[in-house]
Amino acid sequence: MKTRFTELFDVEHPITLGGMQAVGRAELIAAAANAGCLAFLSALTQPTPEDLAKEIARTRELTDKPFGVNITILPTITPPPYDEYRRVIIEAGITAVETAGSNPKEHVDDFKAHGVKVIHKCVAVRHAVKAQSLGVDAISIDGFECAGHPGEDDIPGLILIPAAMDKLDIPVVASGGIADARGLVAALALGADGINMGSRFMATQESYIHENVKQAMVDGDERSTDLIFRTMRNSARVAKNAISQQVREIEKNGGTFEDVRELVAGARGREVYATGDTDHGIWWAGMTQGLINDIPTVAELIERMMREADEIIGRLGALAGTPA
Amino acid sequence: MKTRFTELFDVEHPITLGGMQAVGRAELIAAAANAGCLAFLSALTQPTPEDLAKEIARTRELTDKPFGVNITILPTITPPPYDEYRRVIIEAGITAVETAGSNPKEHVDDFKAHGVKVIHKCVAVRHAVKAQSLGVDAISIDGFECAGHPGEDDIPGLILIPAAMDKLDIPVVASGGIADARGLVAALALGADGINMGSRFMATQESYIHENVKQAMVDGDERSTDLIFRTMRNSARVAKNAISQQVREIEKNGGTFEDVRELVAGARGREVYATGDTDHGIWWAGMTQGLINDIPTVAELIERMMREADEIIGRLGALAGTPA
Repeated sequence: MKTRFTELFDVEHPITLGGMQAVGRAELIAAAANAGCLAFLSALTQPTPEDLAKEIARTRELTDKPFGVNITILPTITPPPYDEYRRVIIEAGITAVETAGSNPKEHVDDFKAHGVKVIHKCVAVRHAVKAQSLGVDAISIDGFECAGHPGEDDIPGLILIPAAMDKLDIPVVASGGIADARGLVAALALGADGINMGSRFMATQESYIHENVKQAMVDGDERSTDLIFRTMRNSARVAKNAISQQVREIEKNGGTFEDVRELVAGARGREVYATGDTDHGIWWAGMTQGLINDIPTVAELIERMMREADEIIGRLGALAGTPA
Repeated sequence: MKTRFTELFDVEHPITLGGMQAVGRAELIAAAANAGCLAFLSALTQPTPEDLAKEIARTRELTDKPFGVNITILPTITPPPYDEYRRVIIEAGITAVETAGSNPKEHVDDFKAHGVKVIHKCVAVRHAVKAQSLGVDAISIDGFECAGHPGEDDIPGLILIPAAMDKLDIPVVASGGIADARGLVAALALGADGINMGSRFMATQESYIHENVKQAMVDGDERSTDLIFRTMRNSARVAKNAISQQVREIEKNGGTFEDVRELVAGARGREVYATGDTDHGIWWAGMTQGLINDIPTVAELIERMMREADEIIGRLGALAGTPA
């Protein structure tokens, strides 16, 4: 399938595997690249810039297809050495970067100066318009359904995608709430040039997380997520469990981050993904749990999606009376 | 365009105009019927069953196409005489009814016994499954984006529609967040057999509401709604204004319905639609405000949507390499 996105990034399918902290490692990224997707290693999953260089090299041993790196800029008291990570990305000859978070300008300028294509992930049309004005090459726009941080506007993809298309000229990837061919074709109908998937890729054979986590995603339905940290204006969609419910209850009663710090510290995604103890930690998962029913290989997943997308498009053509 | 929905209800387009309190009157319903949609008069907009009989007759003077009636069952201390409204609907020879709200069983049984086709509107997959088991003919499933009552699960259409399709056998109409051909084709891609629109029909020439309200919807964007009554587990998506913000603030500070009663009483949709004073009342509007940019006639709207749907389907076919 050819879209502005596949042309821009020179990949086979209009599908990205966006940056996933603690999940976006060599095995999964290489599998997605081999399957014809644009996949992004998660830079900050690596404890140091040197480790990122090694992970890039390790990914290259597993695929000769192009892949990218995600760099997420979050406001923290002691920020990671973003510049050094950026330097590693550029020096490794990576040609596609996914930025996320606030103020990507400095990074965008440097990446662009070195011929690296930038796709900026954001959750609001106005942020996308700003990023376009900074010169990014494409936008990944993330709807309310997504795992992780959907922002505070609560605009789902069905609205967010066409609203973004109405304001943007550059290619747009629809993110959040998509886990199968139906979502892919829907996003394309809404005007997007491609899709991003996160949760769906987590529940694949090559995803380097505990089987219990994958199985929890298969067992979960569309209601198996919680939005926490809303009261702190740092909303995060996580898998619903006793811990997420406790956090919500504390927030409801006026608690601050200090009041939940102990609950969420040492019990974030990284640990759950390693131990598989899905009941006792906060971990990212999107509403797509309601659409995820198996744990295929990445190759099987993508082959199935693209085949079913063709079938859906054929069915739409028949509905419209277009000769198929 | 032929779908299971158009076949079941024998209408030209897979589009419904669902029941809208204070909006679903003869002029708009007849216009939508004449344009080939299945439109539903709002039964309870009429103060008495006798008035509903007159409104049905008035609609028939404006169209010879079939149309339906919506009956919304809400738990109230002094319920309207639902049985009498139902009797009027059956005796008038109406052949399609949209039910909404709780416990439609008694109504469904009676309608079915009289050959009236029933489409039940609900906001959750489990409610849809229940309604199917009660024998309704079709489901209208309403996502988080919708105007009015989206329920408390917050599941948007991108997830809700395919999740519903996975559990239901009867035709499904996707409701909420759809206002143009992009949404129509997206819903069909997600598996729906048709779509419902509310806000989009409000902002048409034939909609019998004040021009200011229509213009406010054109001027609004996707962020111009508020979810109120969440703390009372009776969430309602309304147009964002000073009143809705006040209600939210009161709720945030632990206020109950008693604390907002005066704010919302005498300032509900019906009055705003009549006076056009959009700043000083609570009125229904969906996130589709971000996609509504004009006030066409219903005929222009539907002709444009169906033409653009064909174009989008043609574009998808070209993307997939299907001969167009």
